[in-house]
Amino acid sequence: MSPDHPIPASGAWRPDDAPGRRRFAVSRRPFSLEMGGVLSEVTVVYETWGTLAADASNAVLICHAWTGDSHAAGPAQDGHPTPGWWERLIGPGLAIDTDEWFVVCANVLGGCQGSTGPSSIHPDDGRPYGSRFPVITIRDMVRAQAVLFDELGIERWRSVIGGSMGGMQVLEWAMIFPDRVASVVPIATSLQATAQQIAWGAIGRRIIGLDPRWRGGDYYDAQDGDGPSEGLEIARQVAQVTFRSDDLFTDRFGRRLVDRNRPIETFDLWQRFEVESYLDYHGEKLARRFDANSYLHIGKAMDLHDVARGRGGLRSAIGRLRVPLLSVGITSDILYPLYQQQEIHRMVSSLGVPAELHVIESQHGHDAFLIDVDQIGPPITKFLHRDL
Amino acid sequence: MSPDHPIPASGAWRPDDAPGRRRFAVSRRPFSLEMGGVLSEVTVVYETWGTLAADASNAVLICHAWTGDSHAAGPAQDGHPTPGWWERLIGPGLAIDTDEWFVVCANVLGGCQGSTGPSSIHPDDGRPYGSRFPVITIRDMVRAQAVLFDELGIERWRSVIGGSMGGMQVLEWAMIFPDRVASVVPIATSLQATAQQIAWGAIGRRIIGLDPRWRGGDYYDAQDGDGPSEGLEIARQVAQVTFRSDDLFTDRFGRRLVDRNRPIETFDLWQRFEVESYLDYHGEKLARRFDANSYLHIGKAMDLHDVARGRGGLRSAIGRLRVPLLSVGITSDILYPLYQQQEIHRMVSSLGVPAELHVIESQHGHDAFLIDVDQIGPPITKFLHRDL
Repeated sequence: MSPDHPIPASGAWRPDDAPGRRRFAVSRRPFSLEMGGVLSEVTVVYETWGTLAADASNAVLICHAWTGDSHAAGPAQDGHPTPGWWERLIGPGLAIDTDEWFVVCANVLGGCQGSTGPSSIHPDDGRPYGSRFPVITIRDMVRAQAVLFDELGIERWRSVIGGSMGGMQVLEWAMIFPDRVASVVPIATSLQATAQQIAWGAIGRRIIGLDPRWRGGDYYDAQDGDGPSEGLEIARQVAQVTFRSDDLFTDRFGRRLVDRNRPIETFDLWQRFEVESYLDYHGEKLARRFDANSYLHIGKAMDLHDVARGRGGLRSAIGRLRVPLLSVGITSDILYPLYQQQEIHRMVSSLGVPAELHVIESQHGHDAFLIDVDQIGPPITKFLHRDL
Repeated sequence: MSPDHPIPASGAWRPDDAPGRRRFAVSRRPFSLEMGGVLSEVTVVYETWGTLAADASNAVLICHAWTGDSHAAGPAQDGHPTPGWWERLIGPGLAIDTDEWFVVCANVLGGCQGSTGPSSIHPDDGRPYGSRFPVITIRDMVRAQAVLFDELGIERWRSVIGGSMGGMQVLEWAMIFPDRVASVVPIATSLQATAQQIAWGAIGRRIIGLDPRWRGGDYYDAQDGDGPSEGLEIARQVAQVTFRSDDLFTDRFGRRLVDRNRPIETFDLWQRFEVESYLDYHGEKLARRFDANSYLHIGKAMDLHDVARGRGGLRSAIGRLRVPLLSVGITSDILYPLYQQQEIHRMVSSLGVPAELHVIESQHGHDAFLIDVDQIGPPITKFLHRDL
């Protein structure tokens, strides 16, 4: 299994390119990673929407979550079987208005949608990285994305916006490049991965490792072409429960059976309730479009997320944040609970940085940042127009 | 792998038996199961503590949870590597005082500590049930335990007490045998398994099924004696996170690494945070003492738990509850949240049954029912002494 979506042969961005078409930027210099590895070159695939202003002052960077990619907006297209993951938020006349802003979204380092990741071809021998892919961090993802400054001719992002792992990148953007970011919007994220978040991530890794078809990470050339899709499916199911809420599941599925006509008195061990069918659907859907090694590596990057690392502690790290910040939390989020968004807001505020906290009232759980765009949009629109 | 703990050859209870020693009761009549299966005979292993009063009025039944067994109290012994799971609650002078009460705890049907379960020998062919073991329900567990009435010469339990799946049995005891139970104490449990609870259970099942050593459930005679211990370990890890709380994990593990001397900059994909080591420990500990098929079948029984099934709806089912009820909930329980205990209390109260609700303030999550016995003990002691 190698990246199944052809990447355009040239990556230079031209103003007349169709909006939302994938482009790529390549850094051919060795890229040193935070955890000690080196990639001899790095490709960053990205999409853009809108028009860059003459003074390049209207560029907004969108950062995607664990299994997201560069296709934040726009219709389904080759390699993207569904419309953009923030399709209802980004576009002409929408909350992140592409008539006004030049919007950019890049597939993260470690991903499987064109940017360098475990399924990419190792330049040394022309075979997929597989088990040779090094550990990456959120900071590596951000540093790789910085190639877009030169690529697009941008000095500074007007804002960097993202939810979940996207929010981790947002925070790191403001701390690594404090002079090149004018404002940030971290949504449903954390300053440091908590033990519970790490626990969920670790369980997902062990599930994939349990699948004999994972083959230690070198399954791309397996004779039968059979990767660890079942392990990835089940790992995703664990995540899927943490992405939603008890209330939502009760309202949506209750105790209904998949086969409603069959009496429950004939139930066997593997007959399913509707919620199981839902989990199977989401697991299979992800396994069709995502690479298990990318899932492992990006998950590990989230576990390693800690804005304090190497910065003299949390308060000192937060001290790097010198630009206006809009923090967004979700009432029913069990994975990145509201208290973590309140903590970001409180710590940033205490250092005198202009900070706002917006709370989404939703039963959708963590995934509300993808679903309840009607609630997320207005505060972002207002925040983007604040005087800087 | 067959039951690894020899069961005494005779099961008749004699007053001079040592307290806490395992005994067994056997029903040699065909036992019809709620979901349609039939077991040609059923063994129920149990332990007792204290002395049965001459009028048999002081018998208290304790019901265990998913991976518990009959060893609710007493020191480690053959087949029980640790002291009883409610060791600090049950005993002379303790909250459930065995100087006063005759306390009984039985291993559930489907278990692997002596009662009939998937690892038991099928009487027809002398080989383990394995994949032939039928689906069981909480009601089947309760009906199997009813063999103890004759075995012990008891007409009525003074109280039936249990947490988690034990609480499900408690509720079913009061509904199936309303005249043979004088009071009930359901702790951290539910009236009906919710979609989220089913989701967690289903994921655990799929993880065990992913382990090639599960072999469709027929691994007992595997040439290499190698069962699905890794699948069971990981399934347990999922449960373990839901048994505890975010706060507890943060306080106890934070972001500490297992190998604290190794710089994080040399982290690889499988190096572990302390919380991962904790999960591995708990997974391995369970896999050493528990049978994967029992885990699957008992888990399914919990998913099927619904006191309303076949009883004309929830309110009608609750109407069968005619004895005093003490409901106990835990503030930090994310698996059987406090609102579910409040619901039990509210529904029972609304039908005019004397009901109390006691709330445990704890950060231990669901497992507080096993840990915070100092908080659970006093209300149970008081409840046991109420006039009936």
